Amino acid sequence: MSQSDDLEPFRALLGATGVLTEPGMIRPYCRDHRELMEGATPAVLRPRTVEEVQGLVRLARSGGFGLVPQGGNTGYVGGATPEPGRRQCVVSLERMARIRSVDPLGFTLACDAGTILAEAQAAAAGHGLFLPLSLGSEGSCRLGGNIGTNAGGLQVLRYGMTRDLVLGIEAVLADGSLFSDMRHLRKNNIGIDLKQAFIGAEGALGIVTGVVLKLWPAQAHRATAWLQLAADAPVPEIAATVRRETADLASTFELISAASLALVGEMRGADPGLQAGPGGAVLLELQSSSARIPLEEVLLGTLEELLERGFLEDAVLAQSEAQRRAMWTIRETIPEAEKHAGGSVKHDIAVPVSRIADFLERGGALLAERLPGVRLSFYGHVGDGNIHYNLVVPPGEDRLAFTRAIEAGIAHDLYALAAELGGSFSAEYGIGRFKRDLLARYSDETRLALLAGVKNAFDPDGVMNAGIWFAQDR
Amino acid sequence: MSQSDDLEPFRALLGATGVLTEPGMIRPYCRDHRELMEGATPAVLRPRTVEEVQGLVRLARSGGFGLVPQGGNTGYVGGATPEPGRRQCVVSLERMARIRSVDPLGFTLACDAGTILAEAQAAAAGHGLFLPLSLGSEGSCRLGGNIGTNAGGLQVLRYGMTRDLVLGIEAVLADGSLFSDMRHLRKNNIGIDLKQAFIGAEGALGIVTGVVLKLWPAQAHRATAWLQLAADAPVPEIAATVRRETADLASTFELISAASLALVGEMRGADPGLQAGPGGAVLLELQSSSARIPLEEVLLGTLEELLERGFLEDAVLAQSEAQRRAMWTIRETIPEAEKHAGGSVKHDIAVPVSRIADFLERGGALLAERLPGVRLSFYGHVGDGNIHYNLVVPPGEDRLAFTRAIEAGIAHDLYALAAELGGSFSAEYGIGRFKRDLLARYSDETRLALLAGVKNAFDPDGVMNAGIWFAQDR
Repeated sequence: MSQSDDLEPFRALLGATGVLTEPGMIRPYCRDHRELMEGATPAVLRPRTVEEVQGLVRLARSGGFGLVPQGGNTGYVGGATPEPGRRQCVVSLERMARIRSVDPLGFTLACDAGTILAEAQAAAAGHGLFLPLSLGSEGSCRLGGNIGTNAGGLQVLRYGMTRDLVLGIEAVLADGSLFSDMRHLRKNNIGIDLKQAFIGAEGALGIVTGVVLKLWPAQAHRATAWLQLAADAPVPEIAATVRRETADLASTFELISAASLALVGEMRGADPGLQAGPGGAVLLELQSSSARIPLEEVLLGTLEELLERGFLEDAVLAQSEAQRRAMWTIRETIPEAEKHAGGSVKHDIAVPVSRIADFLERGGALLAERLPGVRLSFYGHVGDGNIHYNLVVPPGEDRLAFTRAIEAGIAHDLYALAAELGGSFSAEYGIGRFKRDLLARYSDETRLALLAGVKNAFDPDGVMNAGIWFAQDR
Repeated sequence: MSQSDDLEPFRALLGATGVLTEPGMIRPYCRDHRELMEGATPAVLRPRTVEEVQGLVRLARSGGFGLVPQGGNTGYVGGATPEPGRRQCVVSLERMARIRSVDPLGFTLACDAGTILAEAQAAAAGHGLFLPLSLGSEGSCRLGGNIGTNAGGLQVLRYGMTRDLVLGIEAVLADGSLFSDMRHLRKNNIGIDLKQAFIGAEGALGIVTGVVLKLWPAQAHRATAWLQLAADAPVPEIAATVRRETADLASTFELISAASLALVGEMRGADPGLQAGPGGAVLLELQSSSARIPLEEVLLGTLEELLERGFLEDAVLAQSEAQRRAMWTIRETIPEAEKHAGGSVKHDIAVPVSRIADFLERGGALLAERLPGVRLSFYGHVGDGNIHYNLVVPPGEDRLAFTRAIEAGIAHDLYALAAELGGSFSAEYGIGRFKRDLLARYSDETRLALLAGVKNAFDPDGVMNAGIWFAQDR
């Protein structure tokens, strides 16, 4: 039977538009977002219903295909990219993007896993509610992918990671059966909370088809400031002071290095209009659903305290939505500015919040010694201990070659430093296919055996996204 | 070899005081908190270190003993009670109660799993920090038990369940190996988050020996009120209004029925000093770490809005710490007042917040029809959709006989009603040995198979707390 005949049952199930095989059509699904890996697939499957997902899983088993679930394909670690040689069909959830319900009194939203994050945000907003998950890719990433990677983003400080927002999950398992746990409950203690296993599992335990998310009241009131940090400003102490003085109404505390700010200026060909202090800059935002909170006064008082303690050189309060947008745009365009400068090699570091200064100091010394000419762009969610620590590709150097050299070299020293400080080589991106070696290096045998054991409990034949976590099947 | 000889290796490992066998000594460990089950054990093992836990697990395996981990033995579902006939040693963590570290900048606390919750709270407070987990039993329950049951309690509304507070876990597995994940990280995406499996697992996957918890800044500022609800007051809408108008600074929203309040009065032999309205009463508390938030104004404004909309008959603002304590004492003594009245049969119901009124109305009709004379005491964390729906044992009736009759009868109708409304038969107590039949009834085969599969991945020989979840080993 030829390969195309193998796909006939899928066409019968999903219709002609549900099975893509034309090379030009499937290429975008086969390539990871950062264009570091060119995958290969016999077909991209595009189900429209949960039943179709169940059917295609059964067909894949009987036809000997593996499956790679894919949402918006915006991941950074190759977790949704089919591996050449594995005969994996991509299962794109893009045609399952229905908002199922919004409950304004229960503060919940239920939707298909293929829903684009921004559309879920908009559905919540339409009911006077707020979905706090917010990422640079929110206009194209899909909730199933957010769940698979336990996405973090720009408002974790106050609202938590994706895990903290998930109340319910529905997923098709490797045998085609349905795990249905679409609860709208904040409390439900009935043994192991199995749905937790799918969060961060990068599609290796099943195909998530539906999700129930926690919502908040609409955050109609905001106060935003741009902080210029003094030399040697103690970032963890500033973050702690902000938490305390704002009663944890601070939703964003983003450190932006002077170098990252400079990259934004270079891309624009103009001064970005805001300066970093010697210690860098911080984008700080407070949110409130209540007009009864004097948010601007709270922010001003907090900034005054930070200024008095000598932590800041200056601070700028956004006086209008346009000024606020200008501050946010700087933060949001850093990845693009790195790309404009020739690309970057990204390190998604986490350390305990109290060790951030240690990491920055010792990481900087490492770079200065080993790669003196290379530009460092660091920024990120330091309120959560998460630093995006990126090395800009030097002018004239080949991006892929530079990436490989860094990842085979100094990256390991940076990860070792993070580990020494109690940190992690993957704060929010995940493992996928790019960090398999790091997972092996920084896990003991007990962890790896449990990981393989849980995988085996859900997917004994390795149908789901084989190749992530482990290069060789365990 | 006699039974006592079998225990010699444990004595050699743990010392004489580490192995209790004298009937009078072991009885408190064998009986569940509600005195519904009288268990039996060859010995109570009391390790002092993680290494001793590893050693005793290996000895138990080779000696053919099962193990039942136990913290403060304050659970409500017999999850820590050794079953007669199973030859299970109790492993009490009471001698592993050390605070390991507190990080005031990172907002974390690490401690042994045997630490009493109140002592962990105090350790946090000693550093100007706040551990929000708060339960009636906090003076005697231990953190390992809180993790095993994913404890909820009185401040879930703002801070979440135990799961939401856990950053790191250390646990001894059934083969004696150590799962060590004592991270102080808010973000760490490295495949399945295995530690989640232990949270709510009631000791069936391993013996949790250590934990890292998230802390908050000390909540030095509080505003507390007692709300008298109008007839047919829409509780979900009141809770939603409170969330919005207080900017989610509300940490407690506890509904107290007039009947529960009356029981408190009867126990005291005096009017409790605060009245319920026709719709019952609500204990509402706001917390803030910042003096910059005008907390009392926020609360007053919120109450005014609720009064204007006709939801309240009246509201009393606590004007002093003594008044605040008086309000809290009423809420906290309800379980004792039920006991004083002869005991109660407890139903730990969860429904989506927006369905609370439906549950109360239809549940009340069921009771009126089927058990017209029986007193209902309901109260609880309705801001989270959790209602403690308790039937008071009628005067003169035998408590255990009444309990069995209710649990074989109307309890099933109440659980069926909760399920119909998208709810759960166990919001925060867990399954243990008392709710095994309910787990089977309200789970489909997919869920049960996954539960058994995960259990098998962690504990293939069923050493850990056999008998919970499943009456027969799967």
